[in-house]
Amino acid sequence: MAGPMVDPGVLEKVRGWRPYIEAKLGFRNHWYPAMFGHELQEDKPVETMLLGESILVNRLDGKLRAIRNRCLHRGVKFSKQVECYKKGTITCWYHAWTYNWDDGKLADIITNPNSSLIGKHSLKTYPIKEAKGLIFIFVGDIDPPDLSTDVPPGFLDEGMAIHGKRRMVKSNWRLGVENGFDASHIFIHKRSKLVAGNDIALPLGFAPLDAGANTRAVIGDPGPIGLYDLLGEKSMPVFEGMLDGEAVLEGHFGTKKVADNISIWLPGVLKVDPWPQAGMNQFEWYVPVDATSHCYLQVLGRMTSSKEEADAFRKEVDDKWIALALDGFNDDDVWAREATEEFYGDNDRGWVEERLFETDMAIVEWRKLASQRNRGIQQPEHL
Amino acid sequence: MAGPMVDPGVLEKVRGWRPYIEAKLGFRNHWYPAMFGHELQEDKPVETMLLGESILVNRLDGKLRAIRNRCLHRGVKFSKQVECYKKGTITCWYHAWTYNWDDGKLADIITNPNSSLIGKHSLKTYPIKEAKGLIFIFVGDIDPPDLSTDVPPGFLDEGMAIHGKRRMVKSNWRLGVENGFDASHIFIHKRSKLVAGNDIALPLGFAPLDAGANTRAVIGDPGPIGLYDLLGEKSMPVFEGMLDGEAVLEGHFGTKKVADNISIWLPGVLKVDPWPQAGMNQFEWYVPVDATSHCYLQVLGRMTSSKEEADAFRKEVDDKWIALALDGFNDDDVWAREATEEFYGDNDRGWVEERLFETDMAIVEWRKLASQRNRGIQQPEHL
Amino acid sequence: MAGPMVDPGVLEKVRGWRPYIEAKLGFRNHWYPAMFGHELQEDKPVETMLLGESILVNRLDGKLRAIRNRCLHRGVKFSKQVECYKKGTITCWYHAWTYNWDDGKLADIITNPNSSLIGKHSLKTYPIKEAKGLIFIFVGDIDPPDLSTDVPPGFLDEGMAIHGKRRMVKSNWRLGVENGFDASHIFIHKRSKLVAGNDIALPLGFAPLDAGANTRAVIGDPGPIGLYDLLGEKSMPVFEGMLDGEAVLEGHFGTKKVADNISIWLPGVLKVDPWPQAGMNQFEWYVPVDATSHCYLQVLGRMTSSKEEADAFRKEVDDKWIALALDGFNDDDVWAREATEEFYGDNDRGWVEERLFETDMAIVEWRKLASQRNRGIQQPEHL
Repeated sequence: MAGPMVDPGVLEKVRGWRPYIEAKLGFRNHWYPAMFGHELQEDKPVETMLLGESILVNRLDGKLRAIRNRCLHRGVKFSKQVECYKKGTITCWYHAWTYNWDDGKLADIITNPNSSLIGKHSLKTYPIKEAKGLIFIFVGDIDPPDLSTDVPPGFLDEGMAIHGKRRMVKSNWRLGVENGFDASHIFIHKRSKLVAGNDIALPLGFAPLDAGANTRAVIGDPGPIGLYDLLGEKSMPVFEGMLDGEAVLEGHFGTKKVADNISIWLPGVLKVDPWPQAGMNQFEWYVPVDATSHCYLQVLGRMTSSKEEADAFRKEVDDKWIALALDGFNDDDVWAREATEEFYGDNDRGWVEERLFETDMAIVEWRKLASQRNRGIQQPEHL
Repeated sequence: MAGPMVDPGVLEKVRGWRPYIEAKLGFRNHWYPAMFGHELQEDKPVETMLLGESILVNRLDGKLRAIRNRCLHRGVKFSKQVECYKKGTITCWYHAWTYNWDDGKLADIITNPNSSLIGKHSLKTYPIKEAKGLIFIFVGDIDPPDLSTDVPPGFLDEGMAIHGKRRMVKSNWRLGVENGFDASHIFIHKRSKLVAGNDIALPLGFAPLDAGANTRAVIGDPGPIGLYDLLGEKSMPVFEGMLDGEAVLEGHFGTKKVADNISIWLPGVLKVDPWPQAGMNQFEWYVPVDATSHCYLQVLGRMTSSKEEADAFRKEVDDKWIALALDGFNDDDVWAREATEEFYGDNDRGWVEERLFETDMAIVEWRKLASQRNRGIQQPEHL
Repeated sequence: MAGPMVDPGVLEKVRGWRPYIEAKLGFRNHWYPAMFGHELQEDKPVETMLLGESILVNRLDGKLRAIRNRCLHRGVKFSKQVECYKKGTITCWYHAWTYNWDDGKLADIITNPNSSLIGKHSLKTYPIKEAKGLIFIFVGDIDPPDLSTDVPPGFLDEGMAIHGKRRMVKSNWRLGVENGFDASHIFIHKRSKLVAGNDIALPLGFAPLDAGANTRAVIGDPGPIGLYDLLGEKSMPVFEGMLDGEAVLEGHFGTKKVADNISIWLPGVLKVDPWPQAGMNQFEWYVPVDATSHCYLQVLGRMTSSKEEADAFRKEVDDKWIALALDGFNDDDVWAREATEEFYGDNDRGWVEERLFETDMAIVEWRKLASQRNRGIQQPEHL
């Protein structure tokens, strides 16, 4: 398994999207969803790993706080044994350096109250906010732009109810993005129960009608920045699988047309509209955890007009769609990404040795867009 | 555990057989037995790893086929989920790139039948053939020479019945070869039940009578190329183990003389004649799998003059010789090789720090011969 | 996990104690306790790993012997299968090279009694001696100085009875030393049953009264060389833990004053006097095993005036103090060291990124003393 640094010889060969290849740990200075709001209770700190950084998250009097999960003194993780002797502070279990959750300041050292370091040093704190039941953290150094610049259009809309799940996947985050945005990956879903049981039309793939990019970029300033896949209009969907002139396989002919609009957004979040049926959307993030794993955070959304409707929608997700769509259907994607990791993770050879075809032009456009428009490349901590 | 590249500082110090030390993954452009014929059924592809290359093997209408087990597109292994929609082809489970087993050509892409890549690219295919119940694969780039150039004399003889087993050993393949061809390694077999129970004469070691090489090379053109150990004639067998002038240990005095002729052949296969009794031979391969493991493929052979005799011989091997010889006796060898791996595998230090003695001259001659006469050094895939 | 070599970029940044940072595998040319005497029986060789070197230890006619645990020939470990055919010798299980325990000389080769190598080569032997029920081995190349130069004062005193235990800890040895000598680490023991149940006075930490070094060095010539922590006199013990002016936590007010004198000695052994109660001492070694683990050897000592008293003391240690002190109390230390390893072991970043405070001046003085007064830096074997 390769470490987080990419070999210069590899980078040399991917000129068109070198920053993307360098971003093994993700893009810095963006908002990422770390967990669901219900996973974090009042004053019960939880560790999360984002882009290779260990972060301790807390809810204090309802307000969210996030600090670097590593004491400045000897580098141990607070989360190994969380100790708190005064509300609003955290005390390191080893030598009792005590920090404010608010600003990260080293406020006291219980073992040596005279220390000249008190008040002089601070832990890194992370901007953090809750939206649509998700806890977002900004991993970066700049003043955080508005959360709306880092999520797909519609996600934050008033009335949009959101619900879903998350899980760890053993592949680099980019293999998650590319699996999701890849039009022809639908081949792996050809026997999905979700498709068959819901009368969904799902082809085996797409034959692009021209050689150009089948995408449309949206460059929000400052955001969101993303790319729509236009294969729906600029390709022939392949419902009949042919080999050497003979039909050998069929896609699924259904009356329900879904996934009309598929778009990918910086820093790495997909929107599928509608999905898995009319009136619903799927949003999914591939949050970089470390060089070889990502957190797959999947949510479904529906416009609702009352709290009752929103509650009913979330119950429907729990009762039906998690098993059928977020698990049943997307399990195939998780499996595919993990199967791809071997090739790309082996000294990054995949990025150089892969051989793309016409349908991948959308992926190529994503790599270029991400290379040009990201706000920074995450470097490993120990440089 | 060291990776497949050998440190230049180590190579510098082994001038006499540097190519051999470089060949951590084996010698390229040779035939290797990958499995037994009975392990491969009609149209049930099987993955095998040879010299660090993952290969998918199949039997189609009885004909053998072998292709690189990695789709050209995104590098996933076909073997993760083998899909076939038309006889004679294999379809990648991810995006439905479809290849011919015959020539490896990308014959179709189900998800995009218009792709300009169809017919333009090919998977690597491997020459493959079955002989004596073994499936041999040629790992290389040149036109394969005849199989007879890469097996010991006698192995392919008409009437030679062959039967045995294979297993993975956790050591580099060269430690397998050297263990087998090493005359004094018999010390580890001093308490073998095979020896005691079969009245076999087995000394504790050999004292060479002169300092020169006790070997005779056979340089077939184009092959086979090998080396006979002549210690039987040019040494005193040591039946009485002495320490400081006192006898402390005895070899096994038996009336059956075996292992008169021991020879090693490129690319790494031993012949012991006769063994484990008169009229029988043992052939054994140490097939490189990766830098730290090899497939130990052991077979016994006997000349037979009818199908009935051949069948009876194979039954005898199954009923008696596997337990007694291929397992019982050779388990000691497997154990010894794995115990040696630590020293040689630790940044290749063993090749520099080892201190050889007179009996090892045969090993030295093998290293030189292999360095001069191999057909290529296998390099790691991701260079 | 980082290998044994330290990155030059890291070394550059730790100018004040660079040799200490280089000594990832410990200091060479010192005596280390490898095990207790009762762990080694007559002619039952035992393997031990010290400073990355595998050593085979034996007791022959009561005399201690230690040799390198690796045959000169093919580098296998004797300990994989110890064979002995004549008292005072060890025969390698692979090719029967036979060495004297006394001087390591290659005395015979059973498999080839004519070999010219016999008598010409020798295994490394290690000076070894037993003292106070511990077996000490000198890992180095120079003539070993007296054992007394490498143990704390008092340890070898006549009448000092010693008893204890040892265990492996998954951290570099230096994190063991620094945990032990670190005055403010006592914060982790604040809820210890040993303290509460024995009426021991234990503050939460120490506030140094001046900014200078609170240590006193003892430079024995040739040894022992060590450092006393003077915080007892030059600091205010902190019994009341304050945060923002409020008392939030208390140390343990007991009537028994312990740990008056804490000192650390080359090559890495702590003395706590008295501990865990008046009239007793704790000595503890953090013996380097490899780059990421050490053997934690903990003993208690008491002056006794007869064999009966000594036996009674050892029984008291077994019956009471191991559970209460060496396990109960020190388990916290083991846990803390292993929690610290992540930061220091991650490419040695901890040594550069740590931020020390006033109480750590004693650790800084130790690092400097160890850098100046050690007898050599242990290098990895395969350089």
